[in-house]
Amino acid sequence: MQNYVLSVLVRNHAGVLSRVTGLFGRRGYNIESLSVAATQRPELSRITLVVRGDDYLLEQVIKQVRKLEEVLSVRPLTEEQSVSRELLLIKFGIGEDASGLIRALNPFGARVVDLSPGSLIAELTGPPREVDRFLEALAPFGPAEVCRTGLTALARGEDPA
Amino acid sequence: MQNYVLSVLVRNHAGVLSRVTGLFGRRGYNIESLSVAATQRPELSRITLVVRGDDYLLEQVIKQVRKLEEVLSVRPLTEEQSVSRELLLIKFGIGEDASGLIRALNPFGARVVDLSPGSLIAELTGPPREVDRFLEALAPFGPAEVCRTGLTALARGEDPA
Repeated sequence: MQNYVLSVLVRNHAGVLSRVTGLFGRRGYNIESLSVAATQRPELSRITLVVRGDDYLLEQVIKQVRKLEEVLSVRPLTEEQSVSRELLLIKFGIGEDASGLIRALNPFGARVVDLSPGSLIAELTGPPREVDRFLEALAPFGPAEVCRTGLTALARGEDPA
Repeated sequence: MQNYVLSVLVRNHAGVLSRVTGLFGRRGYNIESLSVAATQRPELSRITLVVRGDDYLLEQVIKQVRKLEEVLSVRPLTEEQSVSRELLLIKFGIGEDASGLIRALNPFGARVVDLSPGSLIAELTGPPREVDRFLEALAPFGPAEVCRTGLTALARGEDPA
């Protein structure tokens, strides 16, 4: 069992997302994370999903995803050949002195994106493992809420999508 | 017709994502963007989705989403009350001199995350409108590939999720 990253280019029809994710669900694959948004061509969207499973089963699911009418391409991305990043938003309740928290955020390159009465929201980007490490390091500050985008990824080098 | 941001907390069962997205698809709602990943509690995931439609129909879909067994909460987020961010990866083919491209990236706070022979990948985070503006400004450089996570959002202030 290992994690696989798939980059799926689809036509933007209502229901395409549930058809793609449905193929994984029906085979018992849990989708660890998924992100989808429009591409440079507004009629197309790119889905980046992380699934956990074994090689053989995954190959079967990919074949089925490729058969969907709205799917233009399915591309497995390996860690070595691609850049994988994730966005995390994290909220902390704060009292009068937030300097300890700020000092803990800095070494990770996290940025404060909102400061409201009683709370602070910071943003971090990085590969999922770095985001996990950040969350462990900040756990003593008792984050009130956390939101991750799930991974998005692009292949390195000149090879086209 | 306007965009709505929904934050949906779900139990991590295989198939939950396709059940949630299926409710939107069946009513003809196109999901503009969606991101999902585990929360601090690994058995729970948070889905952030952006849908386009009218007030009344959306209310009906929210009611149906709330009825799903795996759904713990559905929370509409307004722009004023929340922090919305998105992550973009963008790849450019580069020749010997990439200094013009680098100069164009800098004012937006975009960061170079990969430099491979013949290509460069940069990362930008921001509200979707800023990401759109960035894409327009960089269009003359002819990006080879673009990948967006879709929006993730947290409510400002002390109000619990």
